[in-house]
Amino acid sequence: MAKFLTNREENYAQWYNDLVIKADLAENSAVRGCMVIKPYGYAIWENIQSQLDKMFKATGHVNAYFPLFIPKSFFSREAAHVEGFAKECAVVTHYRLKMDPDGKGIVVDPAAKLEEELIIRPTSETIIWNSYKNWIQSYRDLPILINQWANVVRWEMRTRLFLRTAEFLWQEGHTAHATREEAVEETDRMINVYSDFAENYMALPVIKGYKSENERFAGALDTYTIEALMQDGKALQAGTSHFLGQNFAKAFDVQFTDKTGKLDYVWATSWGLSTRMVGALIMAHSDNRGLVLPPKLAPLQTVIVPIYKTSDQLEKISEKVIIIKTDLEKAGISIKYDDRENYKPGYKFADYELKGVPVRIAIGPRDIENNTVEIARRDTLEKETIPAGEVTARILRLMEDIQINIFNKALQFRSENTFHIDKWSDFLEIIDNQGGFIMAHWDGTSETEEKIKEETKATIRCIPFNALEEEGKCIYSGRASKRRVLFARSY
Amino acid sequence: MAKFLTNREENYAQWYNDLVIKADLAENSAVRGCMVIKPYGYAIWENIQSQLDKMFKATGHVNAYFPLFIPKSFFSREAAHVEGFAKECAVVTHYRLKMDPDGKGIVVDPAAKLEEELIIRPTSETIIWNSYKNWIQSYRDLPILINQWANVVRWEMRTRLFLRTAEFLWQEGHTAHATREEAVEETDRMINVYSDFAENYMALPVIKGYKSENERFAGALDTYTIEALMQDGKALQAGTSHFLGQNFAKAFDVQFTDKTGKLDYVWATSWGLSTRMVGALIMAHSDNRGLVLPPKLAPLQTVIVPIYKTSDQLEKISEKVIIIKTDLEKAGISIKYDDRENYKPGYKFADYELKGVPVRIAIGPRDIENNTVEIARRDTLEKETIPAGEVTARILRLMEDIQINIFNKALQFRSENTFHIDKWSDFLEIIDNQGGFIMAHWDGTSETEEKIKEETKATIRCIPFNALEEEGKCIYSGRASKRRVLFARSY
Repeated sequence: MAKFLTNREENYAQWYNDLVIKADLAENSAVRGCMVIKPYGYAIWENIQSQLDKMFKATGHVNAYFPLFIPKSFFSREAAHVEGFAKECAVVTHYRLKMDPDGKGIVVDPAAKLEEELIIRPTSETIIWNSYKNWIQSYRDLPILINQWANVVRWEMRTRLFLRTAEFLWQEGHTAHATREEAVEETDRMINVYSDFAENYMALPVIKGYKSENERFAGALDTYTIEALMQDGKALQAGTSHFLGQNFAKAFDVQFTDKTGKLDYVWATSWGLSTRMVGALIMAHSDNRGLVLPPKLAPLQTVIVPIYKTSDQLEKISEKVIIIKTDLEKAGISIKYDDRENYKPGYKFADYELKGVPVRIAIGPRDIENNTVEIARRDTLEKETIPAGEVTARILRLMEDIQINIFNKALQFRSENTFHIDKWSDFLEIIDNQGGFIMAHWDGTSETEEKIKEETKATIRCIPFNALEEEGKCIYSGRASKRRVLFARSY
Repeated sequence: MAKFLTNREENYAQWYNDLVIKADLAENSAVRGCMVIKPYGYAIWENIQSQLDKMFKATGHVNAYFPLFIPKSFFSREAAHVEGFAKECAVVTHYRLKMDPDGKGIVVDPAAKLEEELIIRPTSETIIWNSYKNWIQSYRDLPILINQWANVVRWEMRTRLFLRTAEFLWQEGHTAHATREEAVEETDRMINVYSDFAENYMALPVIKGYKSENERFAGALDTYTIEALMQDGKALQAGTSHFLGQNFAKAFDVQFTDKTGKLDYVWATSWGLSTRMVGALIMAHSDNRGLVLPPKLAPLQTVIVPIYKTSDQLEKISEKVIIIKTDLEKAGISIKYDDRENYKPGYKFADYELKGVPVRIAIGPRDIENNTVEIARRDTLEKETIPAGEVTARILRLMEDIQINIFNKALQFRSENTFHIDKWSDFLEIIDNQGGFIMAHWDGTSETEEKIKEETKATIRCIPFNALEEEGKCIYSGRASKRRVLFARSY
């Protein structure tokens, strides 16, 4: 099956699309820009959800659910917000269909027009802050630490499976605080939760930083981001955490009495991570044979394939497999025994490589004689034969090794493709021919940022938290700069 | 707090609404008919989800995700289906807003009109079967056993929190099979999963049966249902499983090659259970003090409240509590120590009763002296003082006892309110004055069913699977009948 993948080095975009389709992760639907997330792709998302949900709860958050619909007028309340989202939203105008009186099937019933149009949420700040208004009177009602798992819709014109779709799934945290400091702390806490998740579960090294003013969330005073480098040298924004100041509290008139009896507006944050992360996972680690999945998020961690000619051989292998499988399950490994008779081992091997199953165990007649098994790891494609009695210990260690190896490989790729650039001609050269992360000085103005974007399609991905203070000159304008920022073309 | 609840016996509908609001389960939103599910209500739904998801996976199902939007034309393909859903759906007609040229804020951009309107899914058979068309060629591709957790929208005119809302959350299973027998088996399997869940987790006794033709899902050949009795004598449909025959396969032209090489249409089922179940949970068990939750679904199973006057006493109590709490957590009990200083024990007691926490532990200075604790169970309000060393064992047993007791109480209520009726005047008398389940003979015709509904607002809830064969006469028409069916007014 893997042979049908376009070569990654030849056409990265096509390789990605082929892989999503052939590995049965997702497909386009009959609705423009909306994807169907197929069971194998959804299982990855479920693992992402389950781990993130634990991390949110461990940091004191609870889940809730707010309406899919937002009254149109809510959008106008926060000026930057409407500016950011009005251009790409799905609008509900009617609430009934009827049979066409002219017999042409069903039509929208003109009598069922809504007084005020409803927008399908592109993000839920407005509807949520309209609710918080009634929940918050005093400092005793704060903080509110709520997360929501939901679908949202942004009417993107150019869509790509997982990376940019009209409808996508995500979580959105919306918190309310009594002080600016607390809200900033929360914004920071959540970008750290995201980077912890990205690095330790997705095996994806990320750079944490501030967004420039141009790239901030519509309505935020500050946006923190984690940025990852894909194998084609483009950046992917993997999660963002926004300090919203008092903007939404003011827009929805949410005031509270503080400990001294003084009335003040509530401070807010929001933060989100979406099914786009499945796209990041694919693009960061996979190869020309298919997916490479980190064991911590792989729907299936190990597969056992029997190699046999006679039914007698299969029987003996299967007896052995039951023991091995039971033991691995007890150790918490998700495992499948693929004894389908109508497929050859070679086909199965290729299929599980395509699907990115971290470890494959093969057992043949000679293994039965020698009491051994063959173990193949997906990330390095290395094989080894080991005593059957050592399987569980070996697999457990491999799960850790593969997780770390995938991370290290991505980290090394990033190191090799991160460039400290001081000359504009070098900047152009790198961006056009090689891609990657460029660390360069910037004068801090939107004008320069926009000109660089116009000329190179590269944007400021972030101003890294850990950027060193150093005197320098803006790569474009030559004006003074105090630190390097991260430039790249991006998804 | 509980004193603010309307008395259940005086005004059941108001009691229900008060309870949902005061126990912080949900509230109405700014969008007509759409609710906000608040954290405590959502935590119950999360427990329902988590348990059902396990049961679906244990029966071989996997999750996936299909688009929120359904092209209008898809609806027309299955005649009964469009008839059932067209009257109550939200229609997306545009994909952009813009600033009003006359300066009146934002308006729908008339230039961004969709060529074909999109319907927000009221249920997903059509969009899913349109996908299955491409997934199924041969019997080897079958069965497909997929479930989806999603939001759906039905534009109901009269809404009630959890019970009937324009948007609600649910799961919808959609399976595809090679034979009629397999599909019928699946329909049956899933109604059994639902009844197992209702009885053993929700502590809600249900009657399994077939829907009459009038009450079937729009597009189904057969609908199985589980029906529960609420404390006001009205029935609530708690889950349904539909045998769809080949209707959707024909509508979307989904054919497969069977083992003999013959082309045939695929057989289908669908089954769903929604946030309505949270409403059922509230209505079935709760009382004038508030919620009564079955321990298996309670977000918080046990709460510990300290009783003290001095900070010295509080300190000693807290030392004791740490030991007890740690031990209970190890045993898998979800537990909270409420040592908030600005609330009195009496307030806390009332609040946890309102919230339906199954067991409350109170510890005061005398308990410290005697090495005891006071335990109060929510369902019976009984209290007892026991040695501190026995707490964990006692709580674990109480979790089981309370679960069973709540079920038994609901079962007894149902027994006392189920009537075998043979005279029309008795039917009228019971329906008007008492409510409850009425088992009565029916001649099997839609005409009779409709007349009974018109005259009494009672409907046939189901033809129970376990109905005894007995000769009788229809309660309304006097014509021959072979079995009793279940009548009730319903939610």
